Amino acid sequence: MRPTAPAIARAVIELHRRILPRLAPIVPIVKPQLAFFEQLGAPGIEAYEDLVRRARELGLLVIADAKRGDIGTTADAYARAFLGGVAFHGTDVSPPPADALTVQPYFGTDGVQPFLDACDRTGGGLFVLAKTSNPSASEIQDLPTGKRRVVDVVAEAIARWGEPRVASCGYSSVGAVVGATQPRDVQALRSLMPRAIFLLPGYGAQGGTADDVVGAFDARGRGALVVAARSVYFAYRRNDGSEVDDFESAVESAARAMTCEIQAALARAGKPCST
Amino acid sequence: MRPTAPAIARAVIELHRRILPRLAPIVPIVKPQLAFFEQLGAPGIEAYEDLVRRARELGLLVIADAKRGDIGTTADAYARAFLGGVAFHGTDVSPPPADALTVQPYFGTDGVQPFLDACDRTGGGLFVLAKTSNPSASEIQDLPTGKRRVVDVVAEAIARWGEPRVASCGYSSVGAVVGATQPRDVQALRSLMPRAIFLLPGYGAQGGTADDVVGAFDARGRGALVVAARSVYFAYRRNDGSEVDDFESAVESAARAMTCEIQAALARAGKPCST
Repeated sequence: MRPTAPAIARAVIELHRRILPRLAPIVPIVKPQLAFFEQLGAPGIEAYEDLVRRARELGLLVIADAKRGDIGTTADAYARAFLGGVAFHGTDVSPPPADALTVQPYFGTDGVQPFLDACDRTGGGLFVLAKTSNPSASEIQDLPTGKRRVVDVVAEAIARWGEPRVASCGYSSVGAVVGATQPRDVQALRSLMPRAIFLLPGYGAQGGTADDVVGAFDARGRGALVVAARSVYFAYRRNDGSEVDDFESAVESAARAMTCEIQAALARAGKPCST
Repeated sequence: MRPTAPAIARAVIELHRRILPRLAPIVPIVKPQLAFFEQLGAPGIEAYEDLVRRARELGLLVIADAKRGDIGTTADAYARAFLGGVAFHGTDVSPPPADALTVQPYFGTDGVQPFLDACDRTGGGLFVLAKTSNPSASEIQDLPTGKRRVVDVVAEAIARWGEPRVASCGYSSVGAVVGATQPRDVQALRSLMPRAIFLLPGYGAQGGTADDVVGAFDARGRGALVVAARSVYFAYRRNDGSEVDDFESAVESAARAMTCEIQAALARAGKPCST
């Protein structure tokens, strides 16, 4: 039998329905990467929507990692697609909304504004790309401009966008994506964006370690979300290339290991652990 | 009866099936804006896929205006989702591929590389964001860096990415998005990216005029794609707010008017008209 996109999408739905209940007691958030769902076309988006529904039923928050960016009505449409508020003659026809969305900074303030408006309407949040975790990130993000770098200007903009949106916990609904592979950057950008929750990809498979990310946490051990993707999702693959039978338990163990590693690194840095 | 996303998506499919045959004799390309399909969730993506299939059957090229950007395997997944090459155990399960895709530059070369690889594999093309048409574009894109601006560095990168991908027509498969609202920028960026096809949004509803865009065309009257969106798509709405019954003819007339305006502006600038 030849595989089809709908059949693969059904398998993906089943996989996530089995994994999510094992992750829910361990982690607060899941961050689906839209690209991998979009590869399967419409059936893939059904799988994404199922994941969002299930995760929220289990009390998990969902960050839609879609890295969307555009202007005007198009940015507004992306914001509504992911955070809710798609209305047709007064009826809400939105896909299942996520709690937060990752967005691109290149358009500047008026490109981000429709996403900010969506946050204000829905209670959702944003994570704006500041410093990414790839080697070429420096080509544009580290360009010097005056006495600063482009990423510093972006970080200041993120702080400005977040300023009117600081909640009683001290953090804003406008967070920042900061690659965990650059520990010095993490510290410097934290001082430019004191109210932003940092979303730190690059942990695990991309080479970031627990000690690399502790600078993103504040003195209370809060303010940072460390993302592990491949190291948890593909935990069923052993180092020798063989696969374990009980993939749910492999995922659960990998997630537990990761949270312990971060708690240990926070303790080494003299910060309390908030989880 | 309350509207539902699947019902709206079916109406969108019907609308496009009626409009596309009227546009196919007039314009070479359609540029679906993914945000508006994503608003309807999985049924919206079905409508996008139907549009791609129909447009290509009619001999139209399709630029997926998705402004995607990420790194590594995620960028690769986006590239395959839109340009083809999604394989599962040797079977291609790709959604209907577009001919080209719009992408973000913020990640730098290794973020764009998976998209370049997809072009090389499929014969597809890219349009990388250089200068956008919104007022805040200047916040990041116009930042001075040395004697240049950030957008100049991006433009040089686009030229570099396109250099090994120049076809016999003299143009590269790596194009650039250049807002038509900044005529001076259009000229300056043309000199930095002589081999890039320019995709010029902002014409019509966003305020760009035909005379603003002629600088993007070369001496042969080639090398630029002028995008009209709202002025054509919503041509059924009269200025007084009323609507015409025959929306297919309204769209057709608006598309014809736009091509005539551009041909006239090219003639005024002493450039031949290639269409």
